[in-house]
Amino acid sequence: MPKVAVLGAGSWGTALSIVLADNQFDVALWSRREEQVFEINDRHTNEKYLPDRTLPTSIYASTSLEEVLQDTKYVLLVLPTKSIRQICRQILPYLTPEHVIIHSSKGIEIETHKRISEIIQEEIPAQSCKGTVVLSGPSHAEEVSMRLPTTVVVASDVLKTAEEVQDIFINKHFRVYTNPDVIGVEIGGALKNIIALGAGLNDGLGFGDNAKAALMTRGLTEISRLGLEMGANPLTFAGLAGIGDLIATCTSKHSRNWRCGYALGQGQSLDEVLSSMGMVVEGVNTTKAAYQIALSQNVDMPITKAIYQVLFEGKLPRQAVEDLMGRGRTQELENY
Amino acid sequence: MPKVAVLGAGSWGTALSIVLADNQFDVALWSRREEQVFEINDRHTNEKYLPDRTLPTSIYASTSLEEVLQDTKYVLLVLPTKSIRQICRQILPYLTPEHVIIHSSKGIEIETHKRISEIIQEEIPAQSCKGTVVLSGPSHAEEVSMRLPTTVVVASDVLKTAEEVQDIFINKHFRVYTNPDVIGVEIGGALKNIIALGAGLNDGLGFGDNAKAALMTRGLTEISRLGLEMGANPLTFAGLAGIGDLIATCTSKHSRNWRCGYALGQGQSLDEVLSSMGMVVEGVNTTKAAYQIALSQNVDMPITKAIYQVLFEGKLPRQAVEDLMGRGRTQELENY
Repeated sequence: MPKVAVLGAGSWGTALSIVLADNQFDVALWSRREEQVFEINDRHTNEKYLPDRTLPTSIYASTSLEEVLQDTKYVLLVLPTKSIRQICRQILPYLTPEHVIIHSSKGIEIETHKRISEIIQEEIPAQSCKGTVVLSGPSHAEEVSMRLPTTVVVASDVLKTAEEVQDIFINKHFRVYTNPDVIGVEIGGALKNIIALGAGLNDGLGFGDNAKAALMTRGLTEISRLGLEMGANPLTFAGLAGIGDLIATCTSKHSRNWRCGYALGQGQSLDEVLSSMGMVVEGVNTTKAAYQIALSQNVDMPITKAIYQVLFEGKLPRQAVEDLMGRGRTQELENY
Repeated sequence: MPKVAVLGAGSWGTALSIVLADNQFDVALWSRREEQVFEINDRHTNEKYLPDRTLPTSIYASTSLEEVLQDTKYVLLVLPTKSIRQICRQILPYLTPEHVIIHSSKGIEIETHKRISEIIQEEIPAQSCKGTVVLSGPSHAEEVSMRLPTTVVVASDVLKTAEEVQDIFINKHFRVYTNPDVIGVEIGGALKNIIALGAGLNDGLGFGDNAKAALMTRGLTEISRLGLEMGANPLTFAGLAGIGDLIATCTSKHSRNWRCGYALGQGQSLDEVLSSMGMVVEGVNTTKAAYQIALSQNVDMPITKAIYQVLFEGKLPRQAVEDLMGRGRTQELENY
């Protein structure tokens, strides 16, 4: 059976490995942690990230990038944003011009304000691979691992490459659509985590579903506003990688960004929350990056600014949400 | 204190009466039911519709339209869609050219396919009132009655009239924005109930948050598509009366349309569900009206069609959701 390399054995990397295994691929799953590799190969579980799931035996794990990449055409990166650049450097020697690099990470590099595919393209020269594809959309890993119906988009500058990736992932539970707008798909996936932090704050404060729906609506507006400035197609934000992912992330307790916001709303400090969660909460760095980009490009992002103030400037969550409610605007469409 | 007439003492009419009472208006609340009028005036409660809430004493109820309308400038209609035409005929004798007719009903007249403000304008000649305003947005009555933060829009053909209505409702918990797009605000409010039925079906079937987010995303697309055809501004669907209300309705157990869909997904029949709920489920008639409008105008509305088939043609809910998942489209943006 053909083999696919998946780098990153967190919840989402493991769930996507299950999809590929269901589609008759051998999956080589890379993790840096020996004990996790041992658990996956020996017990076919990944308890910390996907509790109570048994993994198909066609998924095997390894700590060796060379071994994982051998005899593959597709490399899927499902890593924290901060690891992407380093891993690209490490895999470069093992890549061939036939390799398609797929990523499904949702963030912005904090030091450079680059999107994930920009980082990949900086580190992996065009002649060293066939292309880059992003996979995004409303997709809690837990549900994907249970084969519950899920739809995602794959975006690439070259439609044919996106279609190749669509072919390897699509099955009757996991529907995959192509979209030509790489920028929009990446921005939508990254920035919705800011709004998910806000939705968690809202819920932690006990502010209810009306306020949360308003926050999400305004949140989508400001994501679209920044996305447009960065070159995205605004229609992407009305799609699965925009409002779709925003809804899934803000309204589900599966989301770690929501859970982080919720704990902050309940009065915990950011340090306490992050250390007790023990997983990367991408939204925290994304808030900082988006806040800085908005400032430098002079884009109005009141929700992002309020979340930034809560995370990094000690603003009280209640005050932040009340400020957002009390803003001076009175005509809904004036900022469009 | 100035007096406002509110016609309809269900959850939403009562909650809006509380907002007006908080804003120092005397509220005259009309209900056809003697025992409800007695309960409101005597015990200051409306247990069936807003359990555990005490109403301000500046809300009084009556079964007499003449009495309720006396000495008012604002009449708020919060009635099932099917009652609007008849009530407009009944109040016409008591209206003056100073009266602003506000409505906050979310439906489409099943026999005529008319929006609520079209019905009002057919029954109340322009010279018999000052104007018509619609109030809509993500606003569960239970939360409004608890003074939880809520944002809504008011839309009118005449901005000044919308601003008058904004002024009487706005307070620190209840934010009101104006929007010039009456058609979009009414279509968004009515059609989201179809998608809420679908979201309930999804949840009743146990299909999860990924599938629901996809359904809501596609649902918004088809609402926008029909709305555009009917003359709405597409940006309205990206706002509070569009995606905002859709989110609040599809993701909250407060919504009776969601609850109806949920019960259907769990295997109950439509008759069983409607008789056990004992409240109007607007989405059922709206599904039929929207399905017929879409057919006659040749607009593609696959979700509405699937819900229609479940409600009226005995299609199994599971089959309907699976058909929606398995559709042939592979490019996300092709139908835009």
